[in-house]
Amino acid sequence: MSRLSANRWGKSEVRVSKVHRGERTDEFSDISVQVLLEGDVESAHTEGDNAAVLPTDTIRNTIYGLAQEHLTDDLEAFAFVLCQRFVARPDIDQARVSIFENIWRRQTDTGFVGGGSERRTAQVAHGRETETGAGIEGLVVLKTRGSAFAGFPRDEFTILPEAADRLLATSVTARWLYSSIPNDTTATWSLVRATIVDHFFADWSASVQHQGYMMGKRVLDAVPEISEINFHLPNQHHLPFDLTRFGLEDQGNVFHPVSEPYGDIGFTVTRD
Amino acid sequence: MSRLSANRWGKSEVRVSKVHRGERTDEFSDISVQVLLEGDVESAHTEGDNAAVLPTDTIRNTIYGLAQEHLTDDLEAFAFVLCQRFVARPDIDQARVSIFENIWRRQTDTGFVGGGSERRTAQVAHGRETETGAGIEGLVVLKTRGSAFAGFPRDEFTILPEAADRLLATSVTARWLYSSIPNDTTATWSLVRATIVDHFFADWSASVQHQGYMMGKRVLDAVPEISEINFHLPNQHHLPFDLTRFGLEDQGNVFHPVSEPYGDIGFTVTRD
Amino acid sequence: MSRLSANRWGKSEVRVSKVHRGERTDEFSDISVQVLLEGDVESAHTEGDNAAVLPTDTIRNTIYGLAQEHLTDDLEAFAFVLCQRFVARPDIDQARVSIFENIWRRQTDTGFVGGGSERRTAQVAHGRETETGAGIEGLVVLKTRGSAFAGFPRDEFTILPEAADRLLATSVTARWLYSSIPNDTTATWSLVRATIVDHFFADWSASVQHQGYMMGKRVLDAVPEISEINFHLPNQHHLPFDLTRFGLEDQGNVFHPVSEPYGDIGFTVTRD
Amino acid sequence: MSRLSANRWGKSEVRVSKVHRGERTDEFSDISVQVLLEGDVESAHTEGDNAAVLPTDTIRNTIYGLAQEHLTDDLEAFAFVLCQRFVARPDIDQARVSIFENIWRRQTDTGFVGGGSERRTAQVAHGRETETGAGIEGLVVLKTRGSAFAGFPRDEFTILPEAADRLLATSVTARWLYSSIPNDTTATWSLVRATIVDHFFADWSASVQHQGYMMGKRVLDAVPEISEINFHLPNQHHLPFDLTRFGLEDQGNVFHPVSEPYGDIGFTVTRD
Repeated sequence: MSRLSANRWGKSEVRVSKVHRGERTDEFSDISVQVLLEGDVESAHTEGDNAAVLPTDTIRNTIYGLAQEHLTDDLEAFAFVLCQRFVARPDIDQARVSIFENIWRRQTDTGFVGGGSERRTAQVAHGRETETGAGIEGLVVLKTRGSAFAGFPRDEFTILPEAADRLLATSVTARWLYSSIPNDTTATWSLVRATIVDHFFADWSASVQHQGYMMGKRVLDAVPEISEINFHLPNQHHLPFDLTRFGLEDQGNVFHPVSEPYGDIGFTVTRD
Repeated sequence: MSRLSANRWGKSEVRVSKVHRGERTDEFSDISVQVLLEGDVESAHTEGDNAAVLPTDTIRNTIYGLAQEHLTDDLEAFAFVLCQRFVARPDIDQARVSIFENIWRRQTDTGFVGGGSERRTAQVAHGRETETGAGIEGLVVLKTRGSAFAGFPRDEFTILPEAADRLLATSVTARWLYSSIPNDTTATWSLVRATIVDHFFADWSASVQHQGYMMGKRVLDAVPEISEINFHLPNQHHLPFDLTRFGLEDQGNVFHPVSEPYGDIGFTVTRD
Repeated sequence: MSRLSANRWGKSEVRVSKVHRGERTDEFSDISVQVLLEGDVESAHTEGDNAAVLPTDTIRNTIYGLAQEHLTDDLEAFAFVLCQRFVARPDIDQARVSIFENIWRRQTDTGFVGGGSERRTAQVAHGRETETGAGIEGLVVLKTRGSAFAGFPRDEFTILPEAADRLLATSVTARWLYSSIPNDTTATWSLVRATIVDHFFADWSASVQHQGYMMGKRVLDAVPEISEINFHLPNQHHLPFDLTRFGLEDQGNVFHPVSEPYGDIGFTVTRD
Repeated sequence: MSRLSANRWGKSEVRVSKVHRGERTDEFSDISVQVLLEGDVESAHTEGDNAAVLPTDTIRNTIYGLAQEHLTDDLEAFAFVLCQRFVARPDIDQARVSIFENIWRRQTDTGFVGGGSERRTAQVAHGRETETGAGIEGLVVLKTRGSAFAGFPRDEFTILPEAADRLLATSVTARWLYSSIPNDTTATWSLVRATIVDHFFADWSASVQHQGYMMGKRVLDAVPEISEINFHLPNQHHLPFDLTRFGLEDQGNVFHPVSEPYGDIGFTVTRD
């Protein structure tokens, strides 16, 4: 004879981001949440009776629903609010909430540089042909304002609304070629990086393509030794999470970041 | 002066799964698609004019929309249909489509074992306390029929519809303890694995919890040396992709598999 | 005042492979081991006194040292031998050993196909230029005999001994182009895969390059519609682990698989 | 008839770290190198003749061998030195070297904080039992001085030399419990993080265990609301790379960082 022993259910890796909008300065939160519940669910296992099994989809929705009002930098307080909500149900007697917050470093009032694993790169070829290049990988940047996407063509598969101002995030991969090698390649690399970061945050853009082209143009302006620069700028989507489905007013500040799929944008800016 | 050189845009890692339903036997496809387009988009980069930039969200929707009619095991044919659709637009002159298909091995008429990286495990403790256990990790199984989820409680955050028959997929992690060590631990491990696989496919279930409990019960029945077995059964969601938004009849066979979040189900079945 | 509470130390992700050589037929084991010890080590934490801290490097060496005699498919027995060895020390009172075995499927007497995540691929371009190709990724193969590497140039940085017979493992990535699209692309893909696998195992080779070229040649022979095939064949090194350092006879059957660095071999075979 | 077309060989993911020792202040480099060569190796593919195939093991050794003298922050210059060395061989006519440098932020004269993906965590349980905790993950720290490991027991499997001063690197995972919840959980988290970082760099240690215990003690001293703190401190080994095998003087500043295996150290510091 067998019986159910320890058990729990819940939802893991629920990714939530939230913009805390100020007049000029925004805060940005980026968390992943795990909720595990315990309760009187033996008959769910043994009989297939789901009367006490709060669906994990509902658990996920609850996290987004409560994030709008309750998610601040006091992660423990938000976790406690979630716990309270779940254990208020008669058949749930224990909740465990774990929150993992990705750390972003503020760069401007509305711009942030993300964790990730940024790397400086160098590429040298020699022999039949000789070429020297350098680059950057994993430079993760996000801005809460200053990016639009509108005026695009529509067909029967187009449901994307036009956006006058949207959250924009990408992980910059850039590679450039030197027509002549600078005296100080480290200082040059730092100048390119600073130019990219500054113009990602400072320049309003109509698309990832537009944003990136301006960044490339500024790099060519700043460093005469660079003949061309190639960018790969995956659009790391932060999908607005529609809270009106739950009868809530949607303030437009709760997002669902997704890692797949991503918009795949690549191009080269060269001297005329 | 700078100008745009080589460039392309598109969508990467668009995951699509499709059930090809037969009378008794189903086929299952599981692909990831990348679409990269080229065309007359210089002014998008330089001026922020998006008139020719088919949104990558539309590209994604197109893949799902055409999958219902055109996705078969002839991947090249589906890729060509996608290419044709995109280059039919006046401002797109080149499309590149790459498809990556995960390989599933048929186990039953409607059951499949996935690639993944299955591992056999063993855990032995000795000293103050002695304990011998074994396990399995990364055993990925999917069935296209024979799983329901209904009768669950609803609150204001519940939008999940009840399902009389749904696609069910998980990556089984199981660990069990031996009250006495079997003579042939390899044969015993194979018997446990076969019992888990057989009952995942053969037994109709009302939930992951119900499915897993039956699997555990059968393992305890089959192997007297096992005192208890613990399961971790992440619900690897395959979300129905709503095609009616595009004016298409939705036949209910095109899905969007997601890796995060996942339903997180764990429990132990023990002897009475 | 603070004090040490629960604690343990050990070594994780110790990768060991072993060939069990038969007259014609070899067995192959591929495991990752974790050892965690507990004992009387409070003064190591509080005073920096290491007298009781068996180094984790010694723990690693012990695993390799005992693998030669004791590692079989009875993983639990090997784990127990390791536990016994460690708790025999006066200051260690508990050992926990976990073993994770990667599963390889036997293909020939001395050839195996590994877990991994094998994928079928297709690449289609259309518009200004049209091209149809297909491929395979993550096809992991290993043979315990039938591969040499000798006669290579030596300089002051060369310490690699010549090998008349070595273990050879790779994860095949192949991409090929169709000059005309076959009627049944799925059957063609299966034929290419079978040809690659069969010739990896059947043909003696003098290097990865030599092995791969023969595979490519056979594919071109077998499928007239293929105009060229490109291979990427990372040499997944299994380093012999020198047991003579421990005063043991070294039977040459215990290896240390490493994921980085890897030999990076790529080439295209085309029709004349 | 088939023939060899484009081809290259080399070594990828060769990880090299180097300490540039100053009187008081050290620099630290952490790179991954890929070398790809082209040359007259057709007969290697078609005939198995290796006379021109510089072994990828030799390529790896060359990178370590030349790093001692030539690796500085001018990555392009080091890449060029490598290229020159390889194309000086009569049968190699093209070399491509790519270098990927992980970025470390200087914290002290000899201490650095690594990229990684640092995360703040919170864990709250509520219901039958209530508990509030917080933590940190992925805090990567490395110091080039101030860490020893000696006085440990030796047996026949011990070949590790005693070290009076070694490079020490770990990725800190810490979790602590609150006996009462601080008013400002964010400020408290920052204080714990600063305490851990400061004492990792400032305190000389006799082992990872010793280092970590001091860190935990200081956290308990600094934050009265914390009742206990648990650490997981994987020893991320940087193995000295023995250059004397190549007839070079070994200055002891070139290392081979490995991700597996790792020393697995965990413990809890609690109040008395």
